[in-house]
Parts: sequence; C-alpha cells; structure tokens
Amino acid sequence: MVAWNNMDTLASFKKLQSVKSVKLQEVMAGESGKERVKNYSVPMAEGMTYNYAAKAVDDDIIAVLKELADEAQLAEKFEELYNGAVINTGEKRMVLHHMTRGQLGKAVNADGGDKREFYLGEQKKIADFANKVHNGEIVNAAGEKFTTVVQIGIGGSDLGPRAMYLALENWAKKNGCFKMEAKFISNVDPDDAAAVLASVDVAHSIFILVSKSGTTLETLTNESFVKDALKKAGLDASKHMIAVTSETSPLAKSSDYLQAFFMDDYIGGRFSSTSGVGGAILSLAFGPDVFARFLNGAAEQDKLCANKDLLKNPAMLDALIGVYERNVLGYPSTAVLPYSQALSRFPAHLQQLDMESNGKSVNRFGEPVSYVTGPVIFGEPGTNGQHSFYQLLHQGTSIVPLQFIGFKNSQIGTDVDIQGSTSQQKLCANVAAQIVAFACGKKDENNNKNFEGGRPSSIIIGDKLTPEALGALLAHFENKVMFQGFVWNINSFDQEGVQLGKVLAKKVLAHETEGALKEYSDLLNI
Amino acid sequence: MVAWNNMDTLASFKKLQSVKSVKLQEVMAGESGKERVKNYSVPMAEGMTYNYAAKAVDDDIIAVLKELADEAQLAEKFEELYNGAVINTGEKRMVLHHMTRGQLGKAVNADGGDKREFYLGEQKKIADFANKVHNGEIVNAAGEKFTTVVQIGIGGSDLGPRAMYLALENWAKKNGCFKMEAKFISNVDPDDAAAVLASVDVAHSIFILVSKSGTTLETLTNESFVKDALKKAGLDASKHMIAVTSETSPLAKSSDYLQAFFMDDYIGGRFSSTSGVGGAILSLAFGPDVFARFLNGAAEQDKLCANKDLLKNPAMLDALIGVYERNVLGYPSTAVLPYSQALSRFPAHLQQLDMESNGKSVNRFGEPVSYVTGPVIFGEPGTNGQHSFYQLLHQGTSIVPLQFIGFKNSQIGTDVDIQGSTSQQKLCANVAAQIVAFACGKKDENNNKNFEGGRPSSIIIGDKLTPEALGALLAHFENKVMFQGFVWNINSFDQEGVQLGKVLAKKVLAHETEGALKEYSDLLNI
Repeated sequence: MVAWNNMDTLASFKKLQSVKSVKLQEVMAGESGKERVKNYSVPMAEGMTYNYAAKAVDDDIIAVLKELADEAQLAEKFEELYNGAVINTGEKRMVLHHMTRGQLGKAVNADGGDKREFYLGEQKKIADFANKVHNGEIVNAAGEKFTTVVQIGIGGSDLGPRAMYLALENWAKKNGCFKMEAKFISNVDPDDAAAVLASVDVAHSIFILVSKSGTTLETLTNESFVKDALKKAGLDASKHMIAVTSETSPLAKSSDYLQAFFMDDYIGGRFSSTSGVGGAILSLAFGPDVFARFLNGAAEQDKLCANKDLLKNPAMLDALIGVYERNVLGYPSTAVLPYSQALSRFPAHLQQLDMESNGKSVNRFGEPVSYVTGPVIFGEPGTNGQHSFYQLLHQGTSIVPLQFIGFKNSQIGTDVDIQGSTSQQKLCANVAAQIVAFACGKKDENNNKNFEGGRPSSIIIGDKLTPEALGALLAHFENKVMFQGFVWNINSFDQEGVQLGKVLAKKVLAHETEGALKEYSDLLNI
Repeated sequence: MVAWNNMDTLASFKKLQSVKSVKLQEVMAGESGKERVKNYSVPMAEGMTYNYAAKAVDDDIIAVLKELADEAQLAEKFEELYNGAVINTGEKRMVLHHMTRGQLGKAVNADGGDKREFYLGEQKKIADFANKVHNGEIVNAAGEKFTTVVQIGIGGSDLGPRAMYLALENWAKKNGCFKMEAKFISNVDPDDAAAVLASVDVAHSIFILVSKSGTTLETLTNESFVKDALKKAGLDASKHMIAVTSETSPLAKSSDYLQAFFMDDYIGGRFSSTSGVGGAILSLAFGPDVFARFLNGAAEQDKLCANKDLLKNPAMLDALIGVYERNVLGYPSTAVLPYSQALSRFPAHLQQLDMESNGKSVNRFGEPVSYVTGPVIFGEPGTNGQHSFYQLLHQGTSIVPLQFIGFKNSQIGTDVDIQGSTSQQKLCANVAAQIVAFACGKKDENNNKNFEGGRPSSIIIGDKLTPEALGALLAHFENKVMFQGFVWNINSFDQEGVQLGKVLAKKVLAHETEGALKEYSDLLNI
C-alpha cells in the first residue's frame, strides 16, 4: 500500500532544503560543463533525450531527489494509478488516460467491461468513420466529399487537440497524409464562431461537438451557432455533426449527430488529447494511421515513466527538479520554449495541463498545505521569444526556470543557406547559445551589459517532430505534472476552482445580482 | 529639472510599505463593493473606462500612490520624454513613439528636421502606396492586383502588428474596409517561412521587410527564403517587396524594393506599432483611413496620460497599482485577460512590451537596484482561459494580479439567443462574475471547494473594439509600462539582455565553441 503524506512531512524533503546549492556559472564552465552536458542526460522515447545539465543540480542533489522519489513512492503511486485505483479523490474517479494508448498494468474493469478494450473500440469506431469520410462513403447531401473538419470545444477539448493539429499540420502535408483542414471554435465570444464559420465552406464541413458532460455552456452555445449557419445554408445539421462525449451524456444517443464517439469520467479534459477528444479531429485531419503513430509515441514514453529508477525516468526527474526549483529555490514560474514553430500552441496546452492540475492549495484529503504548489507556466516558440520576453529572463530581477525543446531537423525540409548556414542550423545554434548564456552569463564592466547567469534550463532534443515524437513529448509532460502532484500530495485531476465563476455568471444572466456584481453587470450592459 | 532617484530612496515609497493593506473580501462585499465599482473608475479615450474597484487599494493607499507619483515626478518625466529629452540613456536616444500619433509638447528637431513632420511624411508615403495598391496603380508583372500582404519581421516588427491585425480583421470585414489578407513570417525556423509561403499565392503577394537596422538575422534569412520562392515562381522579387527600415540602414536605398518607408532610432521595436512598422501592413490590409483612426485613438489616450492628476490619468494609476502589487504585496506575475477573441494575441504583444521594457536589474545609470522590477506577463482570451489556467488563479498557492478587458458589443454582430441570453451577454456575464469570484471568494465547508478570494483585478471596459478603441488600449499599456519604468528608475527603452545569446549563436555557427556550448552544438547536430 502506498502512503499519501504531505511533502513537508518527508525526511528527504527536509534534507533537500539543506543540501548545498549549485552555482551554475561555475559548474557549467569549462571541462565541468562539458562533462555535465555529456552525463546529465536521460533517454526518452523515439530517440529523444532529456538533458538537465543546465539545471542547478549536481550528484548530491540528485541523490536526495532520488530519496524523495522513493519516500514519496512516486513509482508506486503511478502503478496504483494505471492499475485503476481511485486517484482522483475529489471526484472519486480512476485516472485512466494512459490506457487510451497502452496497457501498463493489469486489466481494469468498469462500467461493465474492460476499459482498454473500451478505448480501443472507440478508436476503431473513429478510424472507421474517418476512413469512410476520406474514401467518400460518408458524404454530404449533394454526394460530395467533406473537405474541412471543425472542432467545437473549450479547455481540454480545444487546447490539446489544437496544439497537436498545428504540430503535425506541416508534417502531414509534407508526408502526403494531409486529409482535411481543421478549424476550432472555442470561445463563447460570438465573434469566434462567426469568424470561423465565415472562413469555411459549411456545405463541405464536418463539425465535431466535444463535451464530456454534454452541458458545457460555451460548447452548447457554439453548437447552436453552427446549427443556425447550417440551417441558413439549407443544410441538415444532423448530417454534418458528430459528437465526442460520455455514454451517459444527453448527446450520446441524439439523432442530431451522424455518430457519437465515447470517452468517460476517467479521462480529464486536459488529459484527453489521446482519447476521442483528440482522436476524432486528428484522425479526420491526418488519417487514423497518423493518430495511431501519435499514440504509439505516447505509449513508449509512458513505459519509461513507469521506471522506478529516477535516472531512467525522464518525467519523474523533470518533476523532481521542478519541485526543487519551486519549493527550495523559490521560483514562482516556469517558461516552456519550443524551438519549433509547429509547437506554437504547445505552451498554451501545457499551461492548462500544469496550472489546472497543480494550481491547488489543499491536499488530496482537503487539508490546506503549507507549501507552494504548481507554478505559473507560460511560453512562446523560439527564436520569436528571444526578441520578446527573453530580456527579463536574462536580466530581470526574478529567475524563471526554462524548459527548452529542440529538433535537429525541420518538418518540411525546405531551407536556405545564408552566410554559411541553413535556417535550421541557425535555429539550433540559437537554442544551444541561449542555454549557455542563461547558465553562465557574462561579466561586463558596464552593469547594463552584464549577464549574471545562474538561470537554469533543461532541453528535450529530438530528431524531428514526427507523430511519435509529439506523442512522447505530450506523455512526458502529462506524467511530469502527475508526479509533481504526487510529491505535493494534491489531487491533480479535479478542478473545483472553475465552479464559482460559472455559478456567478448564471446569476448575472438571470439578473439575480446585487452589490458589486450588479454594478459590473450594469457597466457591461448585461 | 526632474530628479532620477531609485524608488527605495523616496519617502512616499517608504510610506507605502507601511500603509494599512486592504482585505478585498471585505471591501468588495455588499454596499461597500457597490460603491467601489461606482467610484473607482477613471475615464479613458473613446468612451472606455479603467475600473480598479477590485484592486487591493483604498482611498488611503491611493493617496500615498499620489504622493509617489508626485515625488517620482512621473508627469514631469513624461513631459521631458515627449519634449525630446534623451530618456533612453543606455543607447543615448530620445523616445518619440508618441509623436507617430500626435504632438503632445513642443516641436522636436533631429536628423535635419521636425520629427512630427517626418513621421507624418512617412505615413503619407505609406498611405499613397497603399491607395495605389488598392486602386490598381501598383500591380504585379501580369498587371493584376495584389491580394495578400506578408510581413517579414520578428519581435516588435511581428508581435504588435500581428496582434493589431488580428484585433481588427473581423471588424474590417464587417465594416467593408477589408482590403488584403495579411500573413506574418517571423521565426528563423525554416518551417515558418515554408508554411506561410505554401499558404499564399506569391504572384499576388506584397512582402514587407521590416528591420530598423537592416541586420536582424531572422528577418534577413527569411527575406532570402521569400526571394527564393519568388524566383522559383519566375517573378522579379524587387516588384513584390517593400521595406520598413531606418534611413541609414543598408535596405534604405536598395533597388531590391518597390519602395522603402522609414522609422528611426527614437522608436523601439516594441513601441513601433503606430510607426511604419504597423502602418504599412495595417494600411495595406485595411486602408490608410482605418490606420489613421487607430492613431487617433492612441493620440487621445496619450493626452489623458499626460495629465498630472493621478485620478485622471488611467495609465499612471494602473502603473502605480502595479508597483504596489509588485513591490509591497510581492506578487511576481500579472495576467492579461481580454474577453475578446479578436485580442487573442494582444497578451503576447504586452508580454514583449512589458517584459522587454522593464525586465531590468540596473537603474538608468547602470547601478544595480535593490528591489524587484517588471513582473512576468502572460494571458489568453476569456472565456477560454477559464477552462485552462484559471484553476490556479482561483485556488493556487500564489496570487496573480489580473487585468481584464471587456467590450459591451461584439465586432461582427452575428449572435444566437440560447437560454434567454446572447453569446455576447454570456461573455460579459462571465467577466463580471470572474472579477467578483476572484475578489470575494466563497466559503465552503469542503476546503477543496473553498474560494479564499482576495485576488485583485482591474477591468478596462469599452463599447466595441474599433480601430480607435484599439489605439487607445495600446497607448494605455505603452504608457503604463513607461510610468512603471520611471518609478523603478530603470531605462525601459533598451534591451541589452538580448545580446549575449546573439553573440554565442554566431560562435556556434562559426564552430568556434568549446566546453558545454560545443557539447550542446553536437547534440543538436550543428
């Protein structure tokens, strides 16, 4: 049995607070720096590597992090999770998103069947549907092929799938597996739906309504928006829409949809990219084979994350270094910086994944914790960020730990050679340069040009952003967030913090307000 | 004469540290809350309002902030700035971006002429060029009209113009002034340029090369990329490109361009949206009249920001409340949350504007400061963010001050009525509800459902996101950042923190590396 204890009760955490800190400027210089880059590296799936040489840790700190991993029983807790324990204590649910891409442990039965079989069955249904759309078996009323797919969803039904689509769009075009263009409607702002609808040919579009409960305000409102547009175009909405929802939702058996695909309560929205929530749109856009490759990458990475040896478990190591930075070094935020334009919205997805999972003040038993938990997460792709907020990262008064991601090769492969190097080489040269600039700094007589250094970063390096690599990346961060939640002894799988705003918004719309809320409502003409 | 002193030497700042703090949960409840929303409000240009009722301030704190504004001579410093003092001490330059949209003070002469006349002249040149493109006087080699404009630039030549274009795209379409579609190439990642080029019809595209110095690595590399594509399409690149640059740059007099438009050293990249950097693309996309309206909104807001009375100067008040939150309450980050899908990239622009300007550790004389300066800035549009990172904002262990933006009306005007309200009403109801939820919280026996409240926010409310409103919003934040820089006694107008990375990247590309940098270069196959 595992023991769920607050982090500050663990002997290894107390030890961590007193272990000698590392001066990055010193250890990253000269021969020592060279050795660190060679040695502080853990293999990931798909030939990728997690390199933490430029993190403010050394063998002594890693040894204590290892003790912390053991004492907090991180590997055992993950094992409980994938074997079907009720890890989401707040909502009294199992946490099974790993099972959408593999079977790490024993069979888990629920809702009258084996859950792995259930997820595979839905994947098969989606693949069949997508194939029929692609080969012209499922067509519009005029007998013409669908060319566009539009996802209607918000939060986890939007950010993850959107980030994954953008990550693979150019790769798919280059590799001959681009099937349909995808668009997304998320915001309740009517201009979002109106603009997307104006940009597509509705007669040749399939709309995917994604809502687990079938009750999400934004999503149902936008569904009506879309139905209105289809009706105005003289089209039968039910021949243009599919649903991804739970079997118990009002959408599940509605004749409003061509077909419904199912997820369940064991998959949180922000962990749902590998379920039908990501599966339907990615299978329609790129074909079921590409989606299967994405799942394979995630499954391979999950296996590594089940490793009990910290130095062979990149997500666990990444998680613990993050805890050290947050709770011992006291850094309040973390930046995610992919040197890949295709990953332009990956930081926005990680922002939800991390901040919604670990932005909690009570432990899994509902008792307030007396240490800080999840940091603020933000980021933009490099090299763009270098010309934006990196100034503060280099010379600001606060230190922000950094998570770089880089690939040796571009997706499209078109490149130019200017001044003796290609754009891809320039891109990679910049990320290498930034890591060292942040870590080592550079002394200058002029304080304004002085770089103090000591700013920690890690980098994940891959060969190319393929479907498998993307799946592995996604799984890495999902598991990192999970491990950090275990260390902090919080429930990373509920989100009670989103409820109060919903309740008050309903009151405003019902004109049942007083005091400040009524005044704001008046100011906004509601 | 103004006196440039560090913030911690000011008597009013010492006073601010000991003034009684405000418990938002209490003051925002009941009648007190109602009165605050009514009274804690400052008019902005274009009928907009800055409301700070839900900030953790009261009359006593505001009184001390007023003293701080006076003692730090904020209004006088702004006056010096717009009258042409060398405020950018690091680079020994004047700071004249306000003059691209108006003349707040006396005439400023430099480079052989009146600067306001110079900026107006360039606007006129751009307007003439755009009109000729729109009316078919300037056409491609086949005598056909151009349909698309592509900006090649990075940092301030990308983020601001891109955010402004997206902010007005739907408005322009709705109001019959959408002239040309705009695209942007920024990243040195070759997949960025390749994907954008694959998405446009190059034979009907005008490319704008934007680089003040004419030496920015990413921009010159991407120019070559574009020239290659034009050449492969059998086109004369010089008939498809214009440049926005300084008169002294190598691009200024090149025959490689149809025409060159000028900016100068007195306008930093992140403050350049109202110069030719934003002017060329916005005038081509929407027509010079729309760009002129955008400038008018900014000019009106600038005038308010020159007001010496803190309670009539929304940017100064916003700035000082931010300083109170950063330096007295100790909050390390700030979120910008526009309830408008059109402002989807406005937070990314503000992230550069704020973090690149005020992410500094030395004062304007190059001496280290002993207090924290610029916070981390991040944000996404609402209601999307509610389903993402708001969990941490509501229930996380750290408090993040919030800056909301909302409009009473949508831009497009297409809407649906579901459950008795329109989408626009739902959008506005949500932002009103969030402000109160963050400020007041809600007690619950179950700690996991408890909302502590006490999380401060302000809101800017406008009627509709028009070109004027956008200009006013932009000017508000530019001036807020400037005032904060004045309080912190730092130079907000240089960016030495971006240099070291550039130097090291060059070494990598020249294979002149050793130690850690060489190892990283090897790992990345450079």
